[in-house]
Amino acid sequence: MILLKIGGNVIDDPAALARFLNHFAQLPGHKILVHGGGKIATQTAKKLGIHTTMVEGRRITDQAMLDVVTMVYGGLVNKQIVAKLQSLNVNAIGLTGADARVVLAHKRPVKDIDYGFVGDLDEISAGQIQFFLRQNLTPVFAPLSYDNAGGLLNTNADTMASAIAVDLARHEPVTLVYCFEKRGVLANPNDDNSVIAELTPAVYAEHKAAGSINKGMIPKLDNAFRALENGVSKVIICHADDVSAAVAGQSGTTLRV
Amino acid sequence: MILLKIGGNVIDDPAALARFLNHFAQLPGHKILVHGGGKIATQTAKKLGIHTTMVEGRRITDQAMLDVVTMVYGGLVNKQIVAKLQSLNVNAIGLTGADARVVLAHKRPVKDIDYGFVGDLDEISAGQIQFFLRQNLTPVFAPLSYDNAGGLLNTNADTMASAIAVDLARHEPVTLVYCFEKRGVLANPNDDNSVIAELTPAVYAEHKAAGSINKGMIPKLDNAFRALENGVSKVIICHADDVSAAVAGQSGTTLRV
Repeated sequence: MILLKIGGNVIDDPAALARFLNHFAQLPGHKILVHGGGKIATQTAKKLGIHTTMVEGRRITDQAMLDVVTMVYGGLVNKQIVAKLQSLNVNAIGLTGADARVVLAHKRPVKDIDYGFVGDLDEISAGQIQFFLRQNLTPVFAPLSYDNAGGLLNTNADTMASAIAVDLARHEPVTLVYCFEKRGVLANPNDDNSVIAELTPAVYAEHKAAGSINKGMIPKLDNAFRALENGVSKVIICHADDVSAAVAGQSGTTLRV
Repeated sequence: MILLKIGGNVIDDPAALARFLNHFAQLPGHKILVHGGGKIATQTAKKLGIHTTMVEGRRITDQAMLDVVTMVYGGLVNKQIVAKLQSLNVNAIGLTGADARVVLAHKRPVKDIDYGFVGDLDEISAGQIQFFLRQNLTPVFAPLSYDNAGGLLNTNADTMASAIAVDLARHEPVTLVYCFEKRGVLANPNDDNSVIAELTPAVYAEHKAAGSINKGMIPKLDNAFRALENGVSKVIICHADDVSAAVAGQSGTTLRV
């Protein structure tokens, strides 16, 4: 079982998205896609006269912004991906966490910052997801969780992908693939050809100490190693164009514990 | 098995929608909801600078408008209904026609009017819908069909509801309920208390000849009688507030052939 996460950089580029979906369609076996948001939510909000506030890369989600991300992530982006996958003979089904109660969360408690309608994950219904997979349906998740009280919550797609992978891994072997804008984790952030083929916690610690892995890569990799520690068989970090090669071990960075 | 259709008048009124969903949640047995659009698509389009053109009550759907209805019907309206139903202990799953390929259509051919990305229905996957129902999932359909070539099509919700009901009726008895803004079909359009309890084709013909049933009711009733002729056990036309009573035969108009 393979779970892939694509982010905004792929969503925002129709040609890149089409290339990725072609790769995705060709992957054999059971598969799941989790997609992020992209600039279209911010652009749509702006056109609707709703101001976007980001704090450390996270979107502050008031009621008006929750409506926008429900429209854009749960509607436009999700359904366009589902329709495109259907044309590639993938029997996709678009889901938010509220659909069939697959991803439950609670509203993030307010500490220093009030993120608004943002969800911290509580529970994944692996049984329900497996039930879809057994029927040869391919779940396509929008980054929205269910608050268990009639509402949706904006949710980080990386976190959602790893939570789903961890829960499914209790039942069957799972490979988790994060697609992003680089060819893998770089030993030198300024050299796109310095991809680290295999990353262990020890090598990761060395690169962190040396400063060659830094900034946004740290939460992403912490999250990825946590998934491995919690039962996910393999985590791959690669470019969306390289998915097929990366799954075959010929591209990207493979994390191992 | 009961299939209910609600229209824009319920969607546009949060209190009416909440009342309806409470009624819906209490209906026993397998059930399906098909929802229409409502003014929110037109309002959202306007804010986004997209002009809405309606011809005989039908929305002309160019690419920009298709994106709006995909966002609003497939995202905002559909997912808000799903989340609300979950809080009422209904395990709802939101669907467009592209999800699991449940509703296939083709783009309406251009005759006098080019409706754009509007779908005329071809095929319903009753087997897939029954598969959801057997898992105690309650399908909630947005009025969007799949064009079998990677795209979505804006689709009339009344037609979608009757097509799904007819297809399911080949396998099990189906009751189709149209909720609208009146208490039923009226013998006198100016008297809201003149509800016709039971409407047969003969009585319908008399009212049409007399002009007491006219305008928008005629396509709605033609569509409803066609569903009966094609195997649906019962069609009820009632107010969204009266669903429980109408299903029990105590309110609304019941059509019989």
